Amino acid sequence: MDVGARLASLKAEAGSHSPSIRTIRQRIPELEIRVDACFLSNPHATDLFMEHMRRDVLEAGSLRELLEYYPSQNRVIAANLEPVTGVAARNIVIGNGATELIEAVMRRFVTGTVLLPIPTFSAYYEFAVPGTQVRHHRLAKARDYALDIDGFAASVGESGASAAIVINPNNPTGGYLSLAELEELLERLRGLEIVVVDESFIHFAYEDDARRLVDLYPLTGRFPNLVLVKSMSKDFGVAGLRAGYAVMSSERVDALLGGGLLWNSNGLAEYFFALYSRPGFLGEYEVVRKRAIDETMALLREMSTLPGIRVYPTKASFVLVELLDGVSSEEFATRLLVDHGIYARDCADKIGLDGQYVRIASRGAKDNATVIHAMRSVLT
Amino acid sequence: MDVGARLASLKAEAGSHSPSIRTIRQRIPELEIRVDACFLSNPHATDLFMEHMRRDVLEAGSLRELLEYYPSQNRVIAANLEPVTGVAARNIVIGNGATELIEAVMRRFVTGTVLLPIPTFSAYYEFAVPGTQVRHHRLAKARDYALDIDGFAASVGESGASAAIVINPNNPTGGYLSLAELEELLERLRGLEIVVVDESFIHFAYEDDARRLVDLYPLTGRFPNLVLVKSMSKDFGVAGLRAGYAVMSSERVDALLGGGLLWNSNGLAEYFFALYSRPGFLGEYEVVRKRAIDETMALLREMSTLPGIRVYPTKASFVLVELLDGVSSEEFATRLLVDHGIYARDCADKIGLDGQYVRIASRGAKDNATVIHAMRSVLT
Repeated sequence: MDVGARLASLKAEAGSHSPSIRTIRQRIPELEIRVDACFLSNPHATDLFMEHMRRDVLEAGSLRELLEYYPSQNRVIAANLEPVTGVAARNIVIGNGATELIEAVMRRFVTGTVLLPIPTFSAYYEFAVPGTQVRHHRLAKARDYALDIDGFAASVGESGASAAIVINPNNPTGGYLSLAELEELLERLRGLEIVVVDESFIHFAYEDDARRLVDLYPLTGRFPNLVLVKSMSKDFGVAGLRAGYAVMSSERVDALLGGGLLWNSNGLAEYFFALYSRPGFLGEYEVVRKRAIDETMALLREMSTLPGIRVYPTKASFVLVELLDGVSSEEFATRLLVDHGIYARDCADKIGLDGQYVRIASRGAKDNATVIHAMRSVLT
Repeated sequence: MDVGARLASLKAEAGSHSPSIRTIRQRIPELEIRVDACFLSNPHATDLFMEHMRRDVLEAGSLRELLEYYPSQNRVIAANLEPVTGVAARNIVIGNGATELIEAVMRRFVTGTVLLPIPTFSAYYEFAVPGTQVRHHRLAKARDYALDIDGFAASVGESGASAAIVINPNNPTGGYLSLAELEELLERLRGLEIVVVDESFIHFAYEDDARRLVDLYPLTGRFPNLVLVKSMSKDFGVAGLRAGYAVMSSERVDALLGGGLLWNSNGLAEYFFALYSRPGFLGEYEVVRKRAIDETMALLREMSTLPGIRVYPTKASFVLVELLDGVSSEEFATRLLVDHGIYARDCADKIGLDGQYVRIASRGAKDNATVIHAMRSVLT
């Protein structure tokens, strides 16, 4: 089988997610991957984490203890997050990655009819339990796939939904609802049983020139039906740790922890959460967070000069690219990978996109330059 | 609050499990814990793992990659376990620790009436979903809490159970059903929907002088209703990694993976599974496995010379100790901890034990000697 065919077969195995770079390297070893532009994470944040880990864990000789003993239970780790989130521990559930919490929230709390804007992250429709009606609210291409509050609130009313899900910033579009818009939407959805807001990319969003962090936690006190889901994989660059958490009413926390999720962290994820909540760490992190934002914006500007594509505005760490000249996303992604070693996310399987799209992650200034060079070569 | 009161409060928070040594150290820092005899794991196996990890990961510079990128998906890791288990990947589910799989199996497959021998590991009754009838089969003290096949099979018939659970070797008793006895029991339970056998301590069991590993996997081909659950935390001494797996029919694997458990490993757990399945590794592991068995047997012999207690036969990595002279298990455990720094498992909360009991883990020859010395001091 040639490389293209083997790629297609790996992709089929991975379902609606992309095969990981580790899996590709194992199965197609002759393929040289120079940039994994499929992978959504801030590499500078990984640098920062590894530097702390080296000092606190490796040089301090505590690695063995972290791997030998059980991690603390869910509520103990949640208590450590109180100062950094400003949220009471009774409102926090720790997850083995956000995926575990998405699954648990969908299973336990999302029943009846749920409204989901599409295109979006597939886990939200895949993890819906049998019997749940997932209604799609199609985001309009004419509005760059941005969520319009009036239309969404109207869809909720018409569909009779008791639940709604909003990924903000959205994946794979990069679309963003401002804090003020989100507040207005939540006001209008007060009557729902549950509103899930996935803020896994929120650290890449900003609303002012200082690119200050947008903080959604104060909303959880005002909207009891709100469940905030947060992955740490993207913004902190630590997907291999599996660390995420969710903020919700204490009754919902009790319901989730009563049925399991007991020892679902691991030793290194617990170390990460301790670092995350350590005074001073977020100050260091701000530098690499803003650097990632600047690089994404530069990538967007560079891409907008390329022929044959349309780029969509983004407040996440990636750019949604539409191919305009009749080239298919599969063909484009395969050429980028096989000819240039650039692994981009072919969005052919994403429901709700109208046209041919790939998603390109920002991977730092140097890798981004390699990506731009390769895209220019394929497009011209 | 004095140390005893704070201990009691930590224990109340931890529910039916013991607070971890990390939590105790954080909350009662003045308590010097010399031996964590509550913690069930083989410390020599931890040594072996750390030695490989140092070479393969730390010195080879691959730690960053393991922590930065997503782990492989469940089926990819399962495929790597085929050679070492002799089980086809389609029959294996990887868990974020065995606890996650116990929870998932109980939720998805154990409904109606389930028969559970007691005393046993509490997760099996705690994770039963509402509506499931958990019937207890009391193990007889007069038989050293060993499971008798005839009695258990009769209980299954009388209770109308469609499911049964057997932990072998059992926790906290150390009782063991031989391979031949287990086969006979499974024959008699062929009519049930599901029989869960938790073999998390099986590496500490043996049936001959060579202490050869008892291999239950061949049974899974013969009994389609059998689900084998395996923690790696105890025998391989890596509780902080969260690694476990379960073997079951491919239909059940499909049902579990269809509803989640997608990226539930982490980078270091995936490395562990790669090491576990590497040719030659199990040969090295055999040395430390047998060493742990020998040390447990020596601990049992030493304990049997102490006054005022009765020790129960064990094929696990711990010894169940009954206190005979009117002393309560709480009092005994508190004295061991406060006066001698020995953290033992007070079994007061275990359902199905008749009397006052503590469970003492074997922690290697040197620590075991410290434990014996402390027990002798408290008992005389």
